[in-house]
Formats: sequence, structure tokens, C-alpha cells
Amino acid sequence: MKYSKLFPKTIKQVPQDTTLKSHQLLYRGGFIRESVAGRYYFLPLALRVNQKIQAIIKDEMDKAGGQELSAPILHPIALWKETNRTTSVGFELMKVKDRNEMEFVLGGTAEEMIVDLIRKFQISYKDLPLNLYQFSTKFRDELRARGGLLRTREFTMKDAYSFDVSEEEFKKEYRKMGDVYTRMFERMGLKTIVVESDNGYIGGEYCHEFVVESEVGESKFLVNKDGTYAAHEDVARFIPEKKNAGEVEKLLQEVEVVRGATMEDGVKLHNLPLWQQIKDVLFVDENGRFILAIIRGDYDVNETKLLHIIKAYQLRHATEEEIREKIHSEPGFISPVGIKDIVDKNVELIIVADETLATIKNAYGGANKKDMDLLNMNMGRDFKPDIVADIALAKEGDIAPDGSGPLAVKRGIEVGNIFQLGFHYSSRMVNATFIDKDGKPKPYYMGCYGIGLGRTMATIAEISNDEKGIIWPEGVAPYKIHLVGLDLEEESVKGEAERVYKLLQAEGLEVLFDDRIGISAGEKFADADLIGIPYRVVVSKKTGDKLEVKKRSEKEIGFYTLEEFLKILG
Amino acid sequence: MKYSKLFPKTIKQVPQDTTLKSHQLLYRGGFIRESVAGRYYFLPLALRVNQKIQAIIKDEMDKAGGQELSAPILHPIALWKETNRTTSVGFELMKVKDRNEMEFVLGGTAEEMIVDLIRKFQISYKDLPLNLYQFSTKFRDELRARGGLLRTREFTMKDAYSFDVSEEEFKKEYRKMGDVYTRMFERMGLKTIVVESDNGYIGGEYCHEFVVESEVGESKFLVNKDGTYAAHEDVARFIPEKKNAGEVEKLLQEVEVVRGATMEDGVKLHNLPLWQQIKDVLFVDENGRFILAIIRGDYDVNETKLLHIIKAYQLRHATEEEIREKIHSEPGFISPVGIKDIVDKNVELIIVADETLATIKNAYGGANKKDMDLLNMNMGRDFKPDIVADIALAKEGDIAPDGSGPLAVKRGIEVGNIFQLGFHYSSRMVNATFIDKDGKPKPYYMGCYGIGLGRTMATIAEISNDEKGIIWPEGVAPYKIHLVGLDLEEESVKGEAERVYKLLQAEGLEVLFDDRIGISAGEKFADADLIGIPYRVVVSKKTGDKLEVKKRSEKEIGFYTLEEFLKILG
Repeated sequence: MKYSKLFPKTIKQVPQDTTLKSHQLLYRGGFIRESVAGRYYFLPLALRVNQKIQAIIKDEMDKAGGQELSAPILHPIALWKETNRTTSVGFELMKVKDRNEMEFVLGGTAEEMIVDLIRKFQISYKDLPLNLYQFSTKFRDELRARGGLLRTREFTMKDAYSFDVSEEEFKKEYRKMGDVYTRMFERMGLKTIVVESDNGYIGGEYCHEFVVESEVGESKFLVNKDGTYAAHEDVARFIPEKKNAGEVEKLLQEVEVVRGATMEDGVKLHNLPLWQQIKDVLFVDENGRFILAIIRGDYDVNETKLLHIIKAYQLRHATEEEIREKIHSEPGFISPVGIKDIVDKNVELIIVADETLATIKNAYGGANKKDMDLLNMNMGRDFKPDIVADIALAKEGDIAPDGSGPLAVKRGIEVGNIFQLGFHYSSRMVNATFIDKDGKPKPYYMGCYGIGLGRTMATIAEISNDEKGIIWPEGVAPYKIHLVGLDLEEESVKGEAERVYKLLQAEGLEVLFDDRIGISAGEKFADADLIGIPYRVVVSKKTGDKLEVKKRSEKEIGFYTLEEFLKILG
Repeated sequence: MKYSKLFPKTIKQVPQDTTLKSHQLLYRGGFIRESVAGRYYFLPLALRVNQKIQAIIKDEMDKAGGQELSAPILHPIALWKETNRTTSVGFELMKVKDRNEMEFVLGGTAEEMIVDLIRKFQISYKDLPLNLYQFSTKFRDELRARGGLLRTREFTMKDAYSFDVSEEEFKKEYRKMGDVYTRMFERMGLKTIVVESDNGYIGGEYCHEFVVESEVGESKFLVNKDGTYAAHEDVARFIPEKKNAGEVEKLLQEVEVVRGATMEDGVKLHNLPLWQQIKDVLFVDENGRFILAIIRGDYDVNETKLLHIIKAYQLRHATEEEIREKIHSEPGFISPVGIKDIVDKNVELIIVADETLATIKNAYGGANKKDMDLLNMNMGRDFKPDIVADIALAKEGDIAPDGSGPLAVKRGIEVGNIFQLGFHYSSRMVNATFIDKDGKPKPYYMGCYGIGLGRTMATIAEISNDEKGIIWPEGVAPYKIHLVGLDLEEESVKGEAERVYKLLQAEGLEVLFDDRIGISAGEKFADADLIGIPYRVVVSKKTGDKLEVKKRSEKEIGFYTLEEFLKILG
């Protein structure tokens, strides 16, 4: 490709709100432009990177037995109703009606579509395991788009769906896909951390994110020193320190107090440690149920964990009015002790205690009345939660659940994820079955596996760059060689540069040839550095029968004949 | 790929409404399945064919200087309003709103999007010619989907847009793209006829369809014997026979008649030829204007031509009530003579006469009153049309406009089209300009070029098949070799088949290996014929150290060693 013809050229300025490095560089280099917020054009250079990423994914998926297909982008809403996802998804669905008033969802993920496809055939155990995948445009009506390609509303995703005869067989597939993902990203120059995470609106019981460590990432996760345990903050577990768990239970005591409504007010007043205080958080779920989450004072409630425990999909904090009029308690003084006896009869109240409460005795906190506190509360004796479970948000320094040491909090960009779906879809959709060896239909066990291509490209640009521009890893670079012609106003030099261009192409190498006349060497080098192609090769009146070669990732310049250079490329 | 693992397998039955050969074969062979009407899954075999088609298109577009990019699928409706296409397009737009109430069109064609991209940059004459293309999912809310992939509501299209400094430069690009298209289709095994056609909702002045002759096609076109003139019936021109054009004009005469309202009734009553009668057709356009189209009795009005002449985009026939109450004429007795004097004052009436009326004298027809006819009407003397133009529908046997002989009516499938757009978009959209040599901004001259990938695949299947199945041309076949293993229950045969499978793959050949055990030779051969891969290679207990080779397109079977077979493949 001759750079003189490439659309578009680089530019020096970026719009003011362009804060992320990857966004700035991809913008300036002429890789991307925004249509409207969160919807991007992929310009020719970006499209080439995207195609390389796609080719790597396809190669690895095919080697692992995946079969590529494609499903329509418009999903009949009837399918999403079959699994209740029209009401439960965490992103706003975009819906559209056709001229016949048939309603569709703009696909954001395609579990229902693929199950609906498979049930058009009578598949048997012989057809399993089956892994079907596609590359297609997905839509998410995100509240806020951000950071160029890091969070967009329309993007190409590779989504794969696996079908197995049993959980046992599925686990092999899940492990295999985990390995495939790690390898894919390695080939793109990305080191990923496999992070346990929440399954969100997908369904199923467990899943993992593939995260590239980066300060600008939206994924906050906890990881131990050697990386053997890594989990998203939504799901991270830990071993809580046993505080005064061995203490003798003292007499429950109600005391009059004058204090504010915060935890700190309680600590100051009673002069007791924060961890000995009970933190009471009252939520309301989408069905109007009240949930009292109680936890040791030095921890926060993890709403994601809580949602799963109570099998709800949305929580909000109860209002002060609700606390007073429905629960008949008092903001800042809520207590699990006796609370079920005072609530309105038509209120459903569920008490969920975090496991950390088992590590303390003689806790203190409110008494469901203004300016009254309780001392020496003990779980089991003074209050009986409906559920005791892990609903805590892990924090820096907590001990990893495998006992391997303290956890550190890190940030990263989620480039891929893999989900166990189990029977979530096959139990909700009719005829989502295979014929087993005994001739009987049985639901299949599912998993799914996603990668956003644009976000992957942006992540590479975000972590692989210097002050001059992007440094594309060879596996995904838009071209392998950036041939810079200098002094091209001299016919002989121009002829030599053209000759080298043709010879390199004849070797099957991808070359971007800066053939512009009247542009300074400095400008051409700046463009080459910005665009970030692995090898810069200069032909000028000084280079003679050699080529001046510099790797984008290195400082050294070398002079080689064409033959020597080809050998270096291997 | 092992056929035992391929999803899905072939089946014998097709749904009842599956009438087209291509639909039946693609369905039975396991290439496609419908989600809902007009929206299809491309299963693994079809996806491979699609990717081959895409690769051929990309290769030819790149060689011709095209640059691939991708635009969002959701187009901000503001852009479509800029060109008035929200009201003028011939297909129903699908619209969708996001959570912020921003309105989008689901892209069916992307002229506005590409112009909106280009105007984000300051391009100059040095950047032109520019040809940008993409492969992306397009949406058309068709009233009726039909025939499998031949007319769908959602499909992958390659759409290209060219930008030139002048009409003269554009014409070179247009011719080049025409050649590119012909070559692309040849590589896919399709012989295309380049047919002048109507530009529909795209805008611009001329365009051509690439049509593959087929009885099931929706494109009806007229073509002369040697193919030097071919045009869609919407736009086909011809040289009308000069009937009695030399006759002396006789006196206009009004006569009382008792006849029905049809043309035939007039012929019978007056005992004069059909061609001497004036056919009067009254239309109403989208703005409520009345259009009286008049034409020689042996021709029909071509509504597409008429629309262009009067610059409207929709026509309907006037009702009998309108003819009586607005025009004050009489159904079956309309006449151009004196009609402007009798219409309602608030009615705008435009008389458009077809050029064929210049080939006759002393015409007869209605008199704008019930049971009254006029004889010896002569254009110019008795009535003066507002417009005289070609608004006739050409028919079988008419003489081609270049005088090259009679035209034949044929049917075909439109697989691609190329459009002159001229300044249609660059004049309607602001800043749709390039900086010319004189430093001033000027609008660029545009063209666009489309190919539907799924329809192309279906067309190949429609014309390249026999009673047993599809016969894929080598350039687009899902695999090159269909290796059929027989007698695989014998370990030694199975080993040999596996060995051949691996050796062929090691040669870089794409092989589908029917490795199923317990399936008869007859069934395996039937599947191979149905799927239609170019080479069938059999390994069985009888083949020994040879391979049994049969081309799908031929009857002969040959026996070769692996080395000999590889030589045949070349």
C-alpha cells in the first residue's frame, strides 16, 4: 500500500475529551473515527489489525474443534422471552419492529439464537461435544460509552457456545477454552490474568475474565502474590481473620445513646473496634422484598454476591421513610435483633448475615429505636439470620481463600470471558436436548466464550506504546514493514525505493510504502513511529545498495542488503 | 474436517414451501436454516462458501485500489434527513432509538455514513480517486422474503463508494468497477450480463445490474442477439416502428359510441388497429399531482420511466371517483384533448406523452364524456402535452435503441450493481468536498457498487447443480476434496483413510473426510453429491494403494496414486 493513497493520513491533534492513550494514538494514527458516541468507523489500518486479531482467534478456535457459523443480528424477541431475559438483562436491550409488527432484539449475545438453531436438528450424543462460534456485530445500549474502543455500543464480538453431554465433559471443554484464550492473547502480545468473575446477565454459576493489567481498566480484581488466585472484586473470596471469636458471650444489653448515624459515630461513642460493630444495610429487590444484609463493621456488603444468594437481579437501598414506616426501625439504628417482630405484616424481610459475623462475639450496634444501642449481640443466641453466606467485599490485604497469602487490589481491562452456563438455557427452552445413548432426550450442558475484537485492539495499543506512538506486536500489526522513501524527488532514489517495495511484496511481505514527495524525513519518521509497524526500512540517497532498518520496539539502526534483511525476518 | 463432527448433517426432506432449487439444496445439504422469514443462519459449510466469495471480492477490490474499512450498522437518522432519504427510499427503513432517545436507521446502504466519515478529514485532489468499501450486515424491511437467500431482510453486502474530482475521472472508475465485477463473478463460476437498470432509491442518473440468466430471477430484462444492448425492463429503450406517421391529418371528429371501457372495446367498435388508439392512464403522485400518461395503444406505460420524468417517487392509479369528480372526465373515455379545460381549478394536471405517439396520425380514443369518442386526434394540433418523453415499456421483438435488431425478454438474478451517484450526495450534504488544485473546496463526484454475498451463493447453487445436488465451482467450494472412507470398520482401511486425510491436509488442501462408521457407501455418495465438493476421493478395502477419484461435475471415475492425484490438482 502506498501511503500517498492511504485513507486517511495521520493528524497531530485529538479532541479534548480524548483522555486514554489508546484512544489518542488510534485517533491520531488514522485508525478510527467516531460516528456518534460509542459507535466507531474502523478505517483501513484498524481493519487490518482487526482482521489479524480475527484470524488468530479463528485459527485457535478451529484447532480446538470450534465450527464457525453466523446467526442473524435481529433476534426474535419471542426467544428472549422463553428464557426471561427480556426482563433480567443488565444492559438495556435495543428493540426494533419490522413492518409486520414482529418484534426483535438487536443481539448483544446469542445463547437463545444458537439453542434455537440446534433444536431445528435432532442431535445426538455422537454430535457432542459441539462448539459453535461466530464473529458478528453486537449491540449494547450502554449508559456511558468511554475511552474510544474500550467500551462501545456496537462492536464485533467472537461468541462461542459449547454443548456437552454432562458437567464432567463440559469441564474439559471449559479448561480447553481457557487454554485457547490464553494462547490467543499471547499471540496478540497480551499477557492475560484469568480472573474469577460474575456471570452477570448470562446465567450459569461460574465464569472467568481474561484481564490485561492496566491502570485504565474497568475491572477491579484481587490477586495473590504468585497469581494462583485471582478474582474480580464482585466475587473475590478470602479467609477472614478470627477476631474475638473465642470470647465468652456476655449478657445482651440495651443502652441509651446520643450519636450520629454512621459506623464511626458508633466506634467513637462505645470506644470499641469497628470490626466488633454490626453493619446493617437494608435493600429492596425488584419484587419489593426487603433484604437486611448484616456484616462485620470493617467490611462492606458485596451486592453482586448478595444478589446471587437471594436470587434477585436488582437491589436498591431502602429509603429512610421505608425504614421507619415499613420496618418500624430507625435509620442508623437498625439491628437484626427482634426486627422480624416489628416489621409491617405485609412486608417480606430476609435477613442475610455475612460469614464474617461468625468471627466476632459480643457485637454492638443499633436497637431498632432512635438513640438506643445494643451491646453484646451474638448471632445464634440473639438473632437468627435466614441465610448465613459470603456477602463480603474483599479488600487489599485479605488472605486468599486458598490460604496462599494476602491479596492485592489491581485494575485491568477485560478482553475476554468464558462462562459456565450449565442447564440455564437448556432447562428454560423447550426441546433444548440431545438424544442420549439410551435413546432418550436429555438437556445439554452449556458454556459460552466471548471476545470483543475492538476492545482487544485498543488494549494492545493501550499497553504497547511509547511517547511517539503505538508499538504493534508482529502478530497483529497492520503491515509488517513500513518502507520510508526519502529524497524521492531524485529519480534514481525513487526508482530504487519502488524496486525495494516490489521485491518485498514479491516475498509475500505486507508493506506500507511512504512514497510521498515533499514531506520531510522527520515527518515521515514521526508518522512511522505513530502508526507503529514493526520494521521501519529506509531507502534514501545515502543508503546505496543497503537498507536502513530499525525495529519499532528498539533503538538501534542497522544497515543490511535486501537479502540479509529477508534473512532477519526469517 | 471430519464429517462425523460437522454440524449439521444432511437431511432428505425440505419444508413444503421450499420451491427454489437453490433453497432446497442448501437446506438439505445443511448449509442454511431460517430463523424467521428472510433471516438466515449460515451454517459451517455455507460460511466457508461465503468466506471464499468474500475473499475473491476483497482480492479484486484491493487490486483495483479499493480500501476496506467498516462503518457502524446503526446510522444516525440525522444523516438520512440531510439527504431526504428518510422519506424517499423504496424499502421500509427499520428505525431504532437508544436509551438516550437518539434515533437510528438500521443501515441498508451507507452513502451518508461514508460521506459523513470523509468530511471529518480535509481531503484534497491528491487523495482522489478514492474507493472505500466494506463487508457488513445490511437490513431491508422487504414486504416479502422469498426463495431462501435470494431475497432476504438481513444479509452481508459488500458496498463500495468512489470519489472523484470530475465526471470524466469517475467514468474511468465506473468502467474499472464494471470490469472488476465481471471478473469477480467469473472467478465464482458466474457468467453475468451487464444490464442497464434503474437507480431506485440510491439517487444518481445511471446504473447497471450484473445479472445471471435464470428463469427464477426477479430481474426482467431485454437483450439483443449478440448482447451488446441489455437493459432492465424498467429502463429498456427501443426504436418504435413508424406506423402511419406519414398520413395526412384528417378532421377531428366527435362520435357517439356504445362500448365498454377497455382498449379492446375501442378496437372492435371502430375496427381500427390497436396502435392507432391512444391509451390514457391517469396517475396520482405522492404530492397529489395528477399525471395523465398517454401512449400508443400497443404499448404500456413504464412507471419507473414516468417517475423519473416527473421527478416523483411514488405513483398510484387515480380512482374512478377522482376521474369523475376531480378531472370531470369519464373512466374508459379519458382524452388529452381539452382535458386541461375541464379539470377542477385546484387540481394540478400534467400531461406526459410517450414518444411513440409521434409515430401515429389520426388517432382515436375517448372524448372525456361517457359514450363519446374522438377520431383523428393529432398531437400538436389537437392536444399539447406538457412533456413528450420515453415512458414506454419495451417488449419482446422491439428494435434495440442502437438499431442492432430485435430484443428478447429474459429473466435473471441480480447479483451485483454499480451506480453513478454524481453530485447527488455531495450536493445535499454539507462539506462533502475536496480541496482542488486551486485551493478551493469542490463537491466530489460519486459512485457506489454493491454485491450481496448470500444471494451470490444462492445463485451459484441455483444454476450449478444436477438432480443429485450442488456442483460448486472450485473457486467457491466449501472444501476442495470430499474424502469418503468406506469399510472403516476394518482397522487397516481406517488407518489408510486417516493417513490419506492427513497427507492431503499436509499439502494444504481443504478436505472434508466422511469418517462415519456404519453408514452405507450409497448414503455417503449421496451426501457427497448433495454437498457438491469438486473432488470425491474414495478409500475402501478395494482401493488398495490407489485412490478412487471422481470430479463432481463429471461422470468418469479414475484410480490414481496419491502422487498422481496431487499432480492432477496441480
